[in-house]
Amino acid sequence: MKIQIIGFGVIGQGFLRVLLKKKEELEMAGEDIKIVSITDISGTAYNDKGIDFEKALETVKNSGRIIDYPEARKISGLEAIEEIDADLVLELTPSNIKTGEPGLSHMLAAMKAGKHLVTSNKAPLALKFKKLVETAEKNGVEFRYEATVGGAMPIINLARETLSADRILSIEGILNGTTNYILTRMTQEGAEFEHVLKEAQQLGYAETDPTYDIGGIDTASKLVILANALMGMNATYKDVKTHGITRITPEAIKLARESGYVIKLIGEVKNGILEVAPRLVQVSHPLNVGGALNVAMLTCDIAGEITVAGKGAGAIETNSAILSDIISITGRR
Amino acid sequence: MKIQIIGFGVIGQGFLRVLLKKKEELEMAGEDIKIVSITDISGTAYNDKGIDFEKALETVKNSGRIIDYPEARKISGLEAIEEIDADLVLELTPSNIKTGEPGLSHMLAAMKAGKHLVTSNKAPLALKFKKLVETAEKNGVEFRYEATVGGAMPIINLARETLSADRILSIEGILNGTTNYILTRMTQEGAEFEHVLKEAQQLGYAETDPTYDIGGIDTASKLVILANALMGMNATYKDVKTHGITRITPEAIKLARESGYVIKLIGEVKNGILEVAPRLVQVSHPLNVGGALNVAMLTCDIAGEITVAGKGAGAIETNSAILSDIISITGRR
Repeated sequence: MKIQIIGFGVIGQGFLRVLLKKKEELEMAGEDIKIVSITDISGTAYNDKGIDFEKALETVKNSGRIIDYPEARKISGLEAIEEIDADLVLELTPSNIKTGEPGLSHMLAAMKAGKHLVTSNKAPLALKFKKLVETAEKNGVEFRYEATVGGAMPIINLARETLSADRILSIEGILNGTTNYILTRMTQEGAEFEHVLKEAQQLGYAETDPTYDIGGIDTASKLVILANALMGMNATYKDVKTHGITRITPEAIKLARESGYVIKLIGEVKNGILEVAPRLVQVSHPLNVGGALNVAMLTCDIAGEITVAGKGAGAIETNSAILSDIISITGRR
Repeated sequence: MKIQIIGFGVIGQGFLRVLLKKKEELEMAGEDIKIVSITDISGTAYNDKGIDFEKALETVKNSGRIIDYPEARKISGLEAIEEIDADLVLELTPSNIKTGEPGLSHMLAAMKAGKHLVTSNKAPLALKFKKLVETAEKNGVEFRYEATVGGAMPIINLARETLSADRILSIEGILNGTTNYILTRMTQEGAEFEHVLKEAQQLGYAETDPTYDIGGIDTASKLVILANALMGMNATYKDVKTHGITRITPEAIKLARESGYVIKLIGEVKNGILEVAPRLVQVSHPLNVGGALNVAMLTCDIAGEITVAGKGAGAIETNSAILSDIISITGRR
């Protein structure tokens, strides 16, 4: 299995670290995973016999640019996809909810070139899910995206494979770790939203521009992916009625708490309606998970309610989803 | 796929109901599931072209005995396994933790006859896991048992398939719905253990002889299955240090609650040690699920902690696990 990595930020670098850590295990399981190219904004490192993981990590650590890898060429992601021989493209560029680019073009080009696609980049799926799925089918390639929703939390493959006997009737969950962290801290400390947000930014839990998280846009994007992938809908993130958490006050949280509830930012898809909004959740309810955790509850036609929770982000953790997607594809070749 | 059902209590009858409900869906998915025999203690209904589900359910509803089905013979489960042509045996007899029988003999006979095995019967696995796995391998048949632990809660296939990139380092969970129901009621009402137990018995949530549940034996059996299946151990339920919930007082629960904790009966396997005991769990911790729910937290080497919760029992719900096991096998044939 020859893999191309497009986008080499924390997740891509984490992927190489996981492969290094799991080297023996993967070899024993008969998995032959070779990274033949790594592209970032500076260019593309390339070696048909396999990139040296440690050297690649060292290169970006030192210079921040993969073009400084010994065998590198000044070609873009699209060029790398078209010119370099590989079985699978791992698309890990940043999520851009306005256009889906550059991820969307990478994904379409990869599948048209007959390459399997694994990704953690949610925006293209939140905008053009149907087109991506149809392109995969037309070109006879696998398209897997467990890492786009909930980081390490297994949800897409869980519903499709482990719960293969069930139809999913509705989904609700906490799909954004930053807002969950902020609300958890506000609950524990009785602190103001702005205060906790600033702390979260200092700790690196929230971006300098936090709109994407606290406005509910990130949750909405993930909700759309779940609705499309697990319930056969054809929604885009613009179909989601979205409210953020900026207006939640410590008083509201305190009042809720006194009645045995917490306030959480919940994404829900039910009866064809997609909504993201702060909601009251009972303290002992499975959806009440604290810290930066993500959680999702699937209502299934036979199994009833199934809840799953896990780390919604993390350079290493997210690669659990990416690697399991890759292993599924190698197992089917 | 010709299936034999051995044991026709609530789960077996629920299985037929689920098949009736899912008939069209399964046909559309290309699943051809035919029940060729159903055995209970009275004998075996048999039809090579397929048992009539509604007639079989009607028969046991009226007389309580499958021998009253139009085409039935006075043969035992073992005889049915040996004499009747089928691809898969669904073993659903009651769990007997002392001997594992009659399930253990049924399972071994089925696999030796070259039949795949799916089961919800945990005792044989808690006693002779290694022998069962080896017998399956030797005879080239599939052996699947998602329903033995946690009813509808997906845990074994989740860890093995959805989390295929991860090694499981430890497991802890609430694996018995009856005790969780009792402790949740004690917490909500400040009631005494004996009082809630009596109510649970009247409502059918607890058996007339509740030792198996409240003594922790049921939890211990399931813990052994998880340790063996997901962590490569070779334990039997006698290796589990087991404490039940009979000594929990409303005062202890109240005290815990005042510090932000609840008391739960937790099964844990970690560093080769298996233990079942009441433990303090933080209110906002993912393991704090109420009612009769089951929950398990897997600590994984890449994904970190993954928690899953679902209905631990139920005539319909448990068949989500059974049917997904069967679908996995038909997909591989």
